[in-house]
Amino acid sequence: MAKAPIGHTRWAIADNYIPSWSHGPEPELASHEGLSILNTGDREVEVRITLYFTDREPAGPYKVKVGARRTNHVRMNLLDDPEPVPLGQPFSTVVEADGPVVVQLTRLDSRQAENALLSVIAFAG
Amino acid sequence: MAKAPIGHTRWAIADNYIPSWSHGPEPELASHEGLSILNTGDREVEVRITLYFTDREPAGPYKVKVGARRTNHVRMNLLDDPEPVPLGQPFSTVVEADGPVVVQLTRLDSRQAENALLSVIAFAG
Amino acid sequence: MAKAPIGHTRWAIADNYIPSWSHGPEPELASHEGLSILNTGDREVEVRITLYFTDREPAGPYKVKVGARRTNHVRMNLLDDPEPVPLGQPFSTVVEADGPVVVQLTRLDSRQAENALLSVIAFAG
Amino acid sequence: MAKAPIGHTRWAIADNYIPSWSHGPEPELASHEGLSILNTGDREVEVRITLYFTDREPAGPYKVKVGARRTNHVRMNLLDDPEPVPLGQPFSTVVEADGPVVVQLTRLDSRQAENALLSVIAFAG
Repeated sequence: MAKAPIGHTRWAIADNYIPSWSHGPEPELASHEGLSILNTGDREVEVRITLYFTDREPAGPYKVKVGARRTNHVRMNLLDDPEPVPLGQPFSTVVEADGPVVVQLTRLDSRQAENALLSVIAFAG
Repeated sequence: MAKAPIGHTRWAIADNYIPSWSHGPEPELASHEGLSILNTGDREVEVRITLYFTDREPAGPYKVKVGARRTNHVRMNLLDDPEPVPLGQPFSTVVEADGPVVVQLTRLDSRQAENALLSVIAFAG
Repeated sequence: MAKAPIGHTRWAIADNYIPSWSHGPEPELASHEGLSILNTGDREVEVRITLYFTDREPAGPYKVKVGARRTNHVRMNLLDDPEPVPLGQPFSTVVEADGPVVVQLTRLDSRQAENALLSVIAFAG
Repeated sequence: MAKAPIGHTRWAIADNYIPSWSHGPEPELASHEGLSILNTGDREVEVRITLYFTDREPAGPYKVKVGARRTNHVRMNLLDDPEPVPLGQPFSTVVEADGPVVVQLTRLDSRQAENALLSVIAFAG
């Protein structure tokens, strides 16, 4: 690809919520949020994730990497450094990268017998 | 974060609809719309929500606050000043803030036995 | 609102599809697509909807109006002038208005026993 | 339409995932991802689709065409040249066109008895 890598270096998601229970075979159908980060560029990108809450100071940064010409689908549930991501509580996310990336959030909610899905491209700004 | 707070000061959602009945344990699985507002800035933001209807003048403003470095997930169903938000009727929403915020709308529809989800980042303009 | 009306005058949706069957009480849970159009301005807006297909020339314009400070949630299924909107076939939509509006598409798919939802803010351009 | 064709020439989707099993009548309710591409212009557009993975170099380009004033709803599952699209694995997509198009991704997940839907307008950049 001759053009510059696609994307932005800062993204936000206002509505995060990881259901605290599930119904269905693990791990495919466990309730979760997946944060997909695409790096079309020719060098590895470092990503810093900060979580915002309703009643306390932000947590983070959680650091992840996305290789050159790779995508990283981060399971939010598994982030635990510097602290575990809370379940059953609303929060928001800011993603900052040292190179252009594209960020999308998808939630699988399997609290009832059948699963429900939502997905948004994050807000670039 | 050294950069300016992320977001815009005016946002719109064209499709709001709060189902008038539910199926499932309250409050987690009650049909509802959640309006998530993220404020990454270092001062509290005041938000004014105006609702637009199909057949009468707009209602509002409904006033909410979002603390510095906080997120507020507003349950639309619970807004009641200056008037309750109608159930089972289509409406639209404009969100105006006195500082940059990011706005996202999520609907949980549990009218049938299993829940359904939709979510959109609001339109910034 | 002292500021200009929010929105754009041209919007597009690439994925339209109205399922051709339903499961659940009518009309609330009939499979359908709703095209929500918000007009925050102080004069009525005229909207022209054009449908694009996979294998024939576009259909339309379908004309609808949105009053000053009103929202119009158009059931795509009910558009029939100049021709009915096809069921069970993919199509795309372009919305053109003579004033700024905000456009969102929501699909309720009730082909199986439980409903599924998707929603997108249309692409403004 | 006197105005220029609506859209952009490069789009990205960060979260692709085609469930590897289904539940429900084929082909309507088979799990799949549909990539909808709208071309409102007066000449045919050539589209190149590149897939990005978590652990290997990108695949593609997959080439598709969208006729003048037509829409093309590509079933991602059916892309097989230069190689089949993997099932049950996360990936990302970049769409490049030689004329303006609008791109939207919709996933139908029918792994459980009832279907779930998500849809996003791709990121234009």
